Amino acid sequence: MKAVQVVGYGRNLELADVPAPEVSGPHDVIVKIGGAGVCRTDIHILEGQWAEKSGVTLPYTIGHENAGWVHAVGSAVTNVAEGDKVIVHPLVTCGLCRACRAGDDVHCAQSDFPGIDTHGGYAEYLRTSARSVVRIDDSLEPADVAALADAGLTAYHAAAKAARRLRPGDRCVVIGAGGLGHIGIQVLKALTAAELVVVDRNADAVKLAVSIGADHGVVADGGHIDEVLGLTGGEGAEVVLDFVGEGGATADGVAMLRRAGDYHVVGYGENINVPTIDVISAEINFIGNLVGSYTDLCELMVLAAQGRVRLHTVKYPLTRFQDALDDLEAGKIRGRAILTP
Amino acid sequence: MKAVQVVGYGRNLELADVPAPEVSGPHDVIVKIGGAGVCRTDIHILEGQWAEKSGVTLPYTIGHENAGWVHAVGSAVTNVAEGDKVIVHPLVTCGLCRACRAGDDVHCAQSDFPGIDTHGGYAEYLRTSARSVVRIDDSLEPADVAALADAGLTAYHAAAKAARRLRPGDRCVVIGAGGLGHIGIQVLKALTAAELVVVDRNADAVKLAVSIGADHGVVADGGHIDEVLGLTGGEGAEVVLDFVGEGGATADGVAMLRRAGDYHVVGYGENINVPTIDVISAEINFIGNLVGSYTDLCELMVLAAQGRVRLHTVKYPLTRFQDALDDLEAGKIRGRAILTP
Amino acid sequence: MKAVQVVGYGRNLELADVPAPEVSGPHDVIVKIGGAGVCRTDIHILEGQWAEKSGVTLPYTIGHENAGWVHAVGSAVTNVAEGDKVIVHPLVTCGLCRACRAGDDVHCAQSDFPGIDTHGGYAEYLRTSARSVVRIDDSLEPADVAALADAGLTAYHAAAKAARRLRPGDRCVVIGAGGLGHIGIQVLKALTAAELVVVDRNADAVKLAVSIGADHGVVADGGHIDEVLGLTGGEGAEVVLDFVGEGGATADGVAMLRRAGDYHVVGYGENINVPTIDVISAEINFIGNLVGSYTDLCELMVLAAQGRVRLHTVKYPLTRFQDALDDLEAGKIRGRAILTP
Amino acid sequence: MKAVQVVGYGRNLELADVPAPEVSGPHDVIVKIGGAGVCRTDIHILEGQWAEKSGVTLPYTIGHENAGWVHAVGSAVTNVAEGDKVIVHPLVTCGLCRACRAGDDVHCAQSDFPGIDTHGGYAEYLRTSARSVVRIDDSLEPADVAALADAGLTAYHAAAKAARRLRPGDRCVVIGAGGLGHIGIQVLKALTAAELVVVDRNADAVKLAVSIGADHGVVADGGHIDEVLGLTGGEGAEVVLDFVGEGGATADGVAMLRRAGDYHVVGYGENINVPTIDVISAEINFIGNLVGSYTDLCELMVLAAQGRVRLHTVKYPLTRFQDALDDLEAGKIRGRAILTP
Repeated sequence: MKAVQVVGYGRNLELADVPAPEVSGPHDVIVKIGGAGVCRTDIHILEGQWAEKSGVTLPYTIGHENAGWVHAVGSAVTNVAEGDKVIVHPLVTCGLCRACRAGDDVHCAQSDFPGIDTHGGYAEYLRTSARSVVRIDDSLEPADVAALADAGLTAYHAAAKAARRLRPGDRCVVIGAGGLGHIGIQVLKALTAAELVVVDRNADAVKLAVSIGADHGVVADGGHIDEVLGLTGGEGAEVVLDFVGEGGATADGVAMLRRAGDYHVVGYGENINVPTIDVISAEINFIGNLVGSYTDLCELMVLAAQGRVRLHTVKYPLTRFQDALDDLEAGKIRGRAILTP
Repeated sequence: MKAVQVVGYGRNLELADVPAPEVSGPHDVIVKIGGAGVCRTDIHILEGQWAEKSGVTLPYTIGHENAGWVHAVGSAVTNVAEGDKVIVHPLVTCGLCRACRAGDDVHCAQSDFPGIDTHGGYAEYLRTSARSVVRIDDSLEPADVAALADAGLTAYHAAAKAARRLRPGDRCVVIGAGGLGHIGIQVLKALTAAELVVVDRNADAVKLAVSIGADHGVVADGGHIDEVLGLTGGEGAEVVLDFVGEGGATADGVAMLRRAGDYHVVGYGENINVPTIDVISAEINFIGNLVGSYTDLCELMVLAAQGRVRLHTVKYPLTRFQDALDDLEAGKIRGRAILTP
Repeated sequence: MKAVQVVGYGRNLELADVPAPEVSGPHDVIVKIGGAGVCRTDIHILEGQWAEKSGVTLPYTIGHENAGWVHAVGSAVTNVAEGDKVIVHPLVTCGLCRACRAGDDVHCAQSDFPGIDTHGGYAEYLRTSARSVVRIDDSLEPADVAALADAGLTAYHAAAKAARRLRPGDRCVVIGAGGLGHIGIQVLKALTAAELVVVDRNADAVKLAVSIGADHGVVADGGHIDEVLGLTGGEGAEVVLDFVGEGGATADGVAMLRRAGDYHVVGYGENINVPTIDVISAEINFIGNLVGSYTDLCELMVLAAQGRVRLHTVKYPLTRFQDALDDLEAGKIRGRAILTP
Repeated sequence: MKAVQVVGYGRNLELADVPAPEVSGPHDVIVKIGGAGVCRTDIHILEGQWAEKSGVTLPYTIGHENAGWVHAVGSAVTNVAEGDKVIVHPLVTCGLCRACRAGDDVHCAQSDFPGIDTHGGYAEYLRTSARSVVRIDDSLEPADVAALADAGLTAYHAAAKAARRLRPGDRCVVIGAGGLGHIGIQVLKALTAAELVVVDRNADAVKLAVSIGADHGVVADGGHIDEVLGLTGGEGAEVVLDFVGEGGATADGVAMLRRAGDYHVVGYGENINVPTIDVISAEINFIGNLVGSYTDLCELMVLAAQGRVRLHTVKYPLTRFQDALDDLEAGKIRGRAILTP
């Protein structure tokens, strides 16, 4: 089959003809790819940023945001059958460790991450596990939802966790109205009645955020902390969801947080650097957020089927992978680039 | 009445003869002091560290850890009566703001803090509020429990919050086996079956911690991170309770924390300074902890009455306040110094 | 002032001229009534059903769903001022008992219930407490929201409690689309993405429920259990909210409940009568629901100000109280009858 | 191998020579039985009470409380290896349904129950799943802990769930100090500081309960409701854990429950029959409890290894199964009867 592979760091991806994956274990599921999201992480992989961490052997097939149709299943697979339309959770988890047994499979003691440390979905077929496939509604198409498999799932996880404490009258600041923030806002609208204040450096992104339901949009132009404090009666917000995590976002965000507030870290890059006396005297919390669990992905697919979460996509045939990456780097993609068969 | 007052920063406290406080509002409660804890914060106040923050007018009576007997009550007081033996919550809260109405009175929008920003308990009588007095069991004496009013209450609050997620098989690291840590360990033993690992630089403090129920004691002598990792199967602990917060404790503590773990900040001094990528990739949380609520104090007094929480005290007559402070500064106090009538 | 009073059980209410209430305690608040809801409970009071339980002395002024403007305040009142537009929580609570201190003021150890056991709001003025008044948004009028003070608050409380466990993909059955059910549906839409199935005997009520957001409407005509099971994949719903509680509703509702589901009891009349073996083998829960807390009322007023919760009302001048009661008994009121000044 | 089988309802069990189970699926685990608990349910099975519900084909091997050593494993088993000492969770669950993925495997959509609907553990070997085996501490012996696999696990599940809301100062009534109650009391002591009041008709059982940590013992002799109310300040207890569920226990238990209290149903037999008006006016909850999850069993094994949960056992060689059953029916067993190899 055709597959797009990493052949060396600092080099372009290459299209190769490789053997299609086959069922080898009882829980294996082979997915015929209908859409594979092109993610900034893919660029970082090519730059070699993940080389040591993943320990993957080159060449290997990249792509960790996948959806498609079940092509073949192992002997112990009971939850999907050939032909089922599915989205693929990014992790292949063991199902037997303490974390998996508690439903917290993201912290599985021995998971694989196709597209990062083993073959991924820039290809015609992908091997994953029965524990990683979620059937999607008839109304959804793999190429439309593929990018929800990782980026969207991370945003869902953080927003849904934050939503658990948000009550009517609470305020939630969303820092960053890009890809993740965009999903996060839609999720918060679906799950809470809290007032949403969206902050971004890009005035167009702020406008878009307001058009999909944010109650207030704030352009981060220097006066944004005061503006948010003004919108929250001088107190700050009960929750800040930070999808940026660099360029000073965390210091700004903490300044917008109310006493007893939760600061959700999602984006990353810089350090959280805050005096312990401020942490205890305002009794604030910093909450880490990784990608969502299998259960989170099921829930996100419900919101997608209900039309509550939508993602703009730009599609490229698999063989035009280089164009997709180039457009992404050039900032030309609105929403997400998706490779299709 | 006699009262020990701050007359200037950088100067010693002075004993003065001042008018006894009287009931002036409907919720006022006058407490005849049976014991007033001598706290390191009192030393910091004298050094002027709180001058700007509190904005208190000098001279004023110091002392924020108080217990005694109800001496007089305002017209609207229904929960205590003259003669009742009580411990005094350190804050006087409004009872009407959103935080107070939700039971989270520590975040009251307009609270007073006797001993910090108004007259405190190094005196014969203290004015507080019906909302701040907790009746204590007949078996307890004010001078024995006074120090639980603030230091002990902070430890209780953090330990009880941490306990909510601790299940049998979980591990909890307590950093710092001093005054607060000592209470924290007893509270954790009372509320959870988690395995307790106590870390302190002082080998005697570690020994004492083990004698009151810690499952493992670790002397912080350079190899302590590895030792804790060894005790937790290389994974780290589900919860770290940091009663130190300075001298590198937070970096050490984060290194002892398991994936998806909670880091409770109680002690303070240094900054939390941690890469956001570590926060999200391990999905860890930093949880701030201020003093406990009124409800927390009620619960702590139950544990005290049950004999599950005990505090060693050294008593001084009120007039020997300077000896108490000197002994505290000289490190001669085991447990807490208490001023008595 | 004018007041409508109960002068005897089994007799009509009578309009009387009585002294207006005055501030007598530090927390008293006198409210000039802008709207007083006419509730089925008022009819039950007249029938004598509450006589023994309330122990009220006749004559007294009836009316427990009140909103208006602050007319006068006691010396210790800091949260409202003369002229403020407020809704009145139905209970006057002590603020000092264990329940009040934990934010669970509905279980106050010594509360009053104006309109039930002391003078209520079918009058020009009402005496209540600072702890019972919630300022409402400028956009809301007392006569429009008065009925949210008790009936609406009960529905909010139950729906918001139920919402805490509802995730996308979960199903919630609402039994009864009358006054409370109507509010409950709007609250569930605001707080969750769960699928709502509304069941009522009245086809028009079902239609109305669907028009305000229910995903499925089911007329309770004998085949309704099967219809709900069909809508939930044969499994039943994760949550049933029963606003009826009589006429066989509970047996029907339990048959619609999924394994590990929550059955919220709100309406009342009949017994819950279910074999313990069914409770344990399906591991279901029965959750009682009383009126909401002060905090709940604040949250409901946020939803009302956002336009997410609306109530149809029919207004009558206070002096036409008998017409309002007659129309209510005759089933002529759509929404709620409100007495206005 | 030797196996004790049900050959007909209303007939005695019979010892048979049957083929030993073998690994046939990738997740299969064959356990060499070290101890099999003899449970009252086994007697009910023989009486035919479970015939229709289980649909099992006779003859089959009985026994659902099992522990032993891993004898052989399927190809996909990674969590245990031959020779491991294990206790066996009573259910074999799918691992792929929604409940399993959320950690709530007890509500698995397609589980088996060895000893009930397929071959159980009154035998030399048992076939179960990798998802059902929990490694136990070196200090524990299979024959000593086998009875914790089902009866003990049910008690743990209910007590641990109840413990989550119990705070110092709360009261918990345990109805029934037999096998399950005995475990429940030990679990509550390990996980909470709540005051425990144990109620049983048998004065000796009450004495035993007090000896293992109950704060108060009450003999159910007619005055027990008043006695419990007296012990709880006339208010009733925050939690009632009912391990009986028949003979009037539920009516008694509800009368001992405080406003806003939780009534945990564990034992079964009679109906819960309570007016909805009582459920809503006191705002009480009825919480169903089935057997615990895999995670619960892991936690219970931690408490057992810590010595916090102990069970008295009487051992019989497998071939003396009839004596064990006879002694159980005759009420001669203190603690639990265990069949050993």
